[in-house]
Amino acid sequence: MKKRILVDMDGVLVDNYPVFFELHEKETGEKLTFSDIEGKLEAEAFVNQRRWVNTPGFFRSLPVMKDSREVLSRLNDKYEIIIGSLATEFPESMTDKQMWIHENFPFISWKQIVFCGDKNMIKADIMIDDHFKNLDNFDGVTILFTQPHNKLVMETRHMRVNDWQEIGKLLLK
Amino acid sequence: MKKRILVDMDGVLVDNYPVFFELHEKETGEKLTFSDIEGKLEAEAFVNQRRWVNTPGFFRSLPVMKDSREVLSRLNDKYEIIIGSLATEFPESMTDKQMWIHENFPFISWKQIVFCGDKNMIKADIMIDDHFKNLDNFDGVTILFTQPHNKLVMETRHMRVNDWQEIGKLLLK
Repeated sequence: MKKRILVDMDGVLVDNYPVFFELHEKETGEKLTFSDIEGKLEAEAFVNQRRWVNTPGFFRSLPVMKDSREVLSRLNDKYEIIIGSLATEFPESMTDKQMWIHENFPFISWKQIVFCGDKNMIKADIMIDDHFKNLDNFDGVTILFTQPHNKLVMETRHMRVNDWQEIGKLLLK
Repeated sequence: MKKRILVDMDGVLVDNYPVFFELHEKETGEKLTFSDIEGKLEAEAFVNQRRWVNTPGFFRSLPVMKDSREVLSRLNDKYEIIIGSLATEFPESMTDKQMWIHENFPFISWKQIVFCGDKNMIKADIMIDDHFKNLDNFDGVTILFTQPHNKLVMETRHMRVNDWQEIGKLLLK
């Protein structure tokens, strides 16, 4: 039986930060860099972030994380892939998020998608996520995807990866 | 630690059939009764059912199953309740479904909701559902909610309940 991997969307498959930087500069005139926001959660780093993510259509047009399509496509043959997002906090986002998956990862079917309010209700063997709130209570193998908000934590509980090539090396050996 | 119950929406919390009968008669002129459709899945019983459930707004206005609000409210104190729906098959339905939950079951938070493509990825101790495809592979206690499509099956694998009063008697002793 294939092992099941629960793959996060925002910050793992979705490359949100370039869009956050651009919108922040457009709306405030302030040009932020990665070093300005290290250690801050998205909503702390970008004052308008909660308004952006609550705007219908926002999630539909976000860029795909580098190399994620190629690596996830290969993982999808070897593992049972589930793409999961804590999306019930933003009920208007779910259709956009699912359409985004179908457009950018056409090999993922609707049966492989979950939107929920707590990832600890999902059964999986491996979790790839950028947030400790999801990884810390998960009972399988946990892989932390580096993002500015988690970068300063010297983490030993979870394996850290910096990009999708590293995920490939780890899981496609 | 509270036991977790995964409660289905359509056919368990949502009383879909009266609406299906009404729409079917309006669109085809044929007046169906429960005995006409026993043993048939919804899409077999009602030729236009898939069109209805794909119509934005359809899920927003459906009636609540008798006694479900009162019994679920009491269960919500004693158990960890998760409301789950196989909704990623109909990506346009999810916002409507979640708004319906918040309107009709205001004591359920967004953290207690899951929309997915396969219920067997959800961890729970008890499942209440009207479909064998969800109950048959679940590894906890399974409760079959009677609906016309499952009525003819002489079922021994799952406990059968006919209404929410029976669920209360079973789980609130």
